[in-house]
Amino acid sequence: MEKAGKAERLIYITNILTQNPMKIFSLSFFCEKLNCAKSTLSEDIDLISKVFVETGQGRLETISGAAGGVYYIPVMKKEDEIEFLNFLKNELQNPERIVSGGFVYINDIVFSPEIIKKAAKIFLRLFLEKEIDYIATVEAKGIALASYVAQYFNKPLVVARSGSKFTEGSTVNISYISGTTGKIETMTMAKKAIKRGSRVLFIDDFMRGGGTVRGMRDLLSEFESTLVGVGVLIATKDKKSIDIDYKSLLILDTLDAENKKIEFSINNQVIS
Amino acid sequence: MEKAGKAERLIYITNILTQNPMKIFSLSFFCEKLNCAKSTLSEDIDLISKVFVETGQGRLETISGAAGGVYYIPVMKKEDEIEFLNFLKNELQNPERIVSGGFVYINDIVFSPEIIKKAAKIFLRLFLEKEIDYIATVEAKGIALASYVAQYFNKPLVVARSGSKFTEGSTVNISYISGTTGKIETMTMAKKAIKRGSRVLFIDDFMRGGGTVRGMRDLLSEFESTLVGVGVLIATKDKKSIDIDYKSLLILDTLDAENKKIEFSINNQVIS
Repeated sequence: MEKAGKAERLIYITNILTQNPMKIFSLSFFCEKLNCAKSTLSEDIDLISKVFVETGQGRLETISGAAGGVYYIPVMKKEDEIEFLNFLKNELQNPERIVSGGFVYINDIVFSPEIIKKAAKIFLRLFLEKEIDYIATVEAKGIALASYVAQYFNKPLVVARSGSKFTEGSTVNISYISGTTGKIETMTMAKKAIKRGSRVLFIDDFMRGGGTVRGMRDLLSEFESTLVGVGVLIATKDKKSIDIDYKSLLILDTLDAENKKIEFSINNQVIS
Repeated sequence: MEKAGKAERLIYITNILTQNPMKIFSLSFFCEKLNCAKSTLSEDIDLISKVFVETGQGRLETISGAAGGVYYIPVMKKEDEIEFLNFLKNELQNPERIVSGGFVYINDIVFSPEIIKKAAKIFLRLFLEKEIDYIATVEAKGIALASYVAQYFNKPLVVARSGSKFTEGSTVNISYISGTTGKIETMTMAKKAIKRGSRVLFIDDFMRGGGTVRGMRDLLSEFESTLVGVGVLIATKDKKSIDIDYKSLLILDTLDAENKKIEFSINNQVIS
């Protein structure tokens, strides 16, 4: 671009930063693109940051020094998080969601871009302080959610398959007891999917007995890697026996198919 | 916000529009939020639109009249599309991707947010003129890609399962011959997933024999709905027998496991 005016600079910087969450852009990158001085740029970035915070559109973080730069953290305001979780809770409490076998129909929820983008932003806030190399999930219902979380963390997504498929090359397999089916299932990941010694955040849509999470932890240990956090959209109540620290946005309190009663609550630990 | 200055307005509008592709915002919405006149706003929007186009960050579309407004179309510049497709082609042509059984390892590709975001932007351009109510895919490898396409079209994503699962309530099932396995497989969708009379864009990662696409078309006809487009990341060569109009970004020309040779080409129909 030729020497850009202040207006052009603000539009360009806002767009680039928000389209690439958690990706660090050096000031030099913008100076070259926009043909301006670093001092001018610093003022622009301060202004953008201020407007983002005031309007609840996340915030910018700057890193000073030679390797420094600026990046965008797409977190929501607390009141927007609470409003969203209340909306989600009400959506889910529709008795028509109860399906036979004591399950809840949530496909429209877990594949709605509008909804999972917001959930992913909450997971970003919850695990922001962790050092994370990969986001992991197990096919299939958590994939879209996990893919937004991966986008917001700017990290690759790895997806374990249930059961061995033949299109992956060499795989690592483990068996685990699924809390959903009560059966022994297999979880598979390609050998080249994860580098040794990585730190992994596991994201899923629903957690019942925690078997899948334990399975993922075991699978990761085969890659000499560590599960550093677990985030799920919904968990069932009473998980005292689970030895894994997890964060669920909502808790399924009651599922009474006979009386068509289904109740969720917001997990207070998440918003406190 | 109190009466915002021009700088604040530009930052806010740029962010809201780019975070919500294809979603129409009325000028009144911004006027109220930013406490400004419509004429002022129109100038801002023209300026933002100009910068987007100049810097290859998509474009804005305005709708005039009482029900009017403005929305963001996140398409790429043609040269950026070509650069991306060349990058993808080179990534894929690594002989280490060949796995036994004549398959290609593409998990890292289809779950990389960076890559599938760009592919999704190309699909947005390709099917922009179609009226679309839903984006559909079949689990599991196409889900992340389809979820970005859904986000860019601002439409819900529906995911068919392979094989009947019991957590969906009433389902519609069809059988089809998979081009990947050569076997008869089942495709399942919840009865409440799609409204009657809908128009659906099918997105997937890989197309071999076209069996999955035909399966999806049959499944949709059970919902009295129509397949209005098919977009796949990669298709194998020589698909003359396929009676369905599809658009693949790349074509797999050669896959010779014995000589460790794997070759792709960019589909010229897509970029011409």
